[in-house]
Amino acid sequence: MRKASVISIGNEILSGQTVDTNALYLSGKLLSIGIPVVSSYTAGDDINLIVRMLGLASEDADLVLVTGGLGPTDDDVTRQALAKFLGVELQLKSELLEKIQNMFAHRERPMPERNKIQAYIPVGAKAIKNNLGTAPGIRAESADKLYFVMPGVPSEMKQIFEESVFPELKKFASKQAIVVLKLRCFGAGESVIAEKLGELMQRGRNPLINCTVHYGVVTLHIIVATAEGKGQAQEMAGKCEKMLRNALGELIYGTGEQTLAEVVGAKLAQQKKTIAVAESCTGGTLAKLLTDIPGASRYFTYGWVTYSNAAKIKELGVEADLIEKEGAVSERTAEAMAQGARKRAGTDFAIGITGIAGPDGGSEHKPVGLVYISVSSDGSCETKRFVFVAHSRDFIRLQAAQTALNMLRLKL
Amino acid sequence: MRKASVISIGNEILSGQTVDTNALYLSGKLLSIGIPVVSSYTAGDDINLIVRMLGLASEDADLVLVTGGLGPTDDDVTRQALAKFLGVELQLKSELLEKIQNMFAHRERPMPERNKIQAYIPVGAKAIKNNLGTAPGIRAESADKLYFVMPGVPSEMKQIFEESVFPELKKFASKQAIVVLKLRCFGAGESVIAEKLGELMQRGRNPLINCTVHYGVVTLHIIVATAEGKGQAQEMAGKCEKMLRNALGELIYGTGEQTLAEVVGAKLAQQKKTIAVAESCTGGTLAKLLTDIPGASRYFTYGWVTYSNAAKIKELGVEADLIEKEGAVSERTAEAMAQGARKRAGTDFAIGITGIAGPDGGSEHKPVGLVYISVSSDGSCETKRFVFVAHSRDFIRLQAAQTALNMLRLKL
Repeated sequence: MRKASVISIGNEILSGQTVDTNALYLSGKLLSIGIPVVSSYTAGDDINLIVRMLGLASEDADLVLVTGGLGPTDDDVTRQALAKFLGVELQLKSELLEKIQNMFAHRERPMPERNKIQAYIPVGAKAIKNNLGTAPGIRAESADKLYFVMPGVPSEMKQIFEESVFPELKKFASKQAIVVLKLRCFGAGESVIAEKLGELMQRGRNPLINCTVHYGVVTLHIIVATAEGKGQAQEMAGKCEKMLRNALGELIYGTGEQTLAEVVGAKLAQQKKTIAVAESCTGGTLAKLLTDIPGASRYFTYGWVTYSNAAKIKELGVEADLIEKEGAVSERTAEAMAQGARKRAGTDFAIGITGIAGPDGGSEHKPVGLVYISVSSDGSCETKRFVFVAHSRDFIRLQAAQTALNMLRLKL
Repeated sequence: MRKASVISIGNEILSGQTVDTNALYLSGKLLSIGIPVVSSYTAGDDINLIVRMLGLASEDADLVLVTGGLGPTDDDVTRQALAKFLGVELQLKSELLEKIQNMFAHRERPMPERNKIQAYIPVGAKAIKNNLGTAPGIRAESADKLYFVMPGVPSEMKQIFEESVFPELKKFASKQAIVVLKLRCFGAGESVIAEKLGELMQRGRNPLINCTVHYGVVTLHIIVATAEGKGQAQEMAGKCEKMLRNALGELIYGTGEQTLAEVVGAKLAQQKKTIAVAESCTGGTLAKLLTDIPGASRYFTYGWVTYSNAAKIKELGVEADLIEKEGAVSERTAEAMAQGARKRAGTDFAIGITGIAGPDGGSEHKPVGLVYISVSSDGSCETKRFVFVAHSRDFIRLQAAQTALNMLRLKL
């Protein structure tokens, strides 16, 4: 199986000014044809450093993909570094120069002298056509390794990659195709999930299960590293998925890129049910998550952000006495908010959320992160107490809104 | 001058599943104190590969920052790799174990056995406190080089870095400090801003002005590349700021990391004014932006998400006839929403938003992206029509909410 390594070049990446989306894009594309990216490197615009990185990448992999440093300005030195690494000179290609001149003529501008450098490539290498910019890509071979150098501008890189590089790399597509299947979980931390999965998550297994966490959503990646062809790989992934589903049950809410709001919205639409929300500490976060989904108007009709006590009393009919006695952040206030919202909006379900998002406003008995969530439906009202660890105000708010969606999901 | 190298660890980065924002963040912070990041490496969750990357980074730099692979599951092997690289064993620290146990106790949950691994650190290394998660960071020294290992979860990494790593690194701050000053603009695109700035934005100047755009907010970075000491650098940046302010006027809404909601909130609090919002297409986005700010309850009291026509009529007193005649997405409906919300909530200001966020629901006369925003205040009501270019539903919704904040800002 061929392996790849990716090198990103540019001071702007190392200075924290630009996110390196090129390496991400290339890794995803390569993985899709079963070529794993085993390492990636970033270098500033420095000839010696780039030469060193080319050497390192060549140790790791058979295919080396380089982006950046092909521009016309003095800080662009990738083509010089590639020539030095290959031990050859740069050579002016008249047909490339002509193309660059035509490009400027088309834009009705004279070609600045400094663009001439883009017509030079290392002796023995080939230029790769760039339809969008003046810098051609470069393809070189050396000691059984293949090098593809592309511009750093993402649109140009992608165009060159898709048109010229990817078709060639497909020849090396591993027959042992890698299938990546994602299962999305909510309602337990990664260590609890790992414990439930036990040896299924051990290193070196095939399929391998990787785990990532993003704002409380635990994603399990099922990666089939070796299989005889794509059919077998899919079958192996499918079997593994079944085992994970058996072990985790309701903790798994979806697959692929699905969000909780998407899954909940689809269930509401399918069952022709409607929902209203009454939010205090989350301040609109839950309504926003629900309405992020196109077509949410089929099931979402009303939302209240009752940030003040007066609003809770006036808009939702929460009793002033209740707030006085139990506090705005209490089980019974959450319940009254949910019930008031459901009654007022005339929906099948309503959610009430009240809590302390911080950073201020916490006390010993009611710490920052304390949130009550109530889900009211015809004939029942379930209210739960949570203490979200105080990462940040944003985290607590999002976590509370997601947890509310999850409570509703389990009811649907 | 000290140099740094950054290593990011995690299969999910190499497989194109996750953007590596940690390396970006660290590079920016280091640059802000004049420590250049000269290289960066990414490795999968593989002990030998991580050991190799630690060696490479140590060749490049005096300071090595590592993120990722400190979780409790079997695929997290960074602490083992660090011990191997340093040539020492891992050691259980009882005080760390106690902290982790306390963390679970606070969440009212038992500690899974596998979290115990997070209490191990290499002999001779020090643990770095993590307030947000169970994985402590690790600080190690070897052969005059300094190593800081932090969790991959961005919020935990940032907290550990800011609290414990950055203060130590500041000792190595270069005297030729690079000052980066940011001015935040809203209300015009980057090409309009570039035109207003003219030669101020030319390459090769010192200070240099860089420009980045994120969801309609244009950020101008004033970068002083060379100066005799920090005082002079700050003076140069200040002069440049003055020129930009003269050229751009009200387009500049803030500095540094300030958001529009923060600036608007501060003005409301300072003037002791209150605000209510009535949202249709933005579905809670505006309320969320306003309540993202700690202490928003000083000025934000009521919000409605009137997604259905019935809700607009019942909650805000919009006349059914008006919706019938002019449509839910119309200038007069936006106005009636704002006025209804202000009256109902008894606030100084209210904002009404109605529009078509897409992807469906557009027509020739009312395309996707059409949004009416109305700001009602005592004695006046300003309503504007916008057509936001239809990047995506998310973009249109956020852009509409931000534009509403900007309209309010210009009134305050």
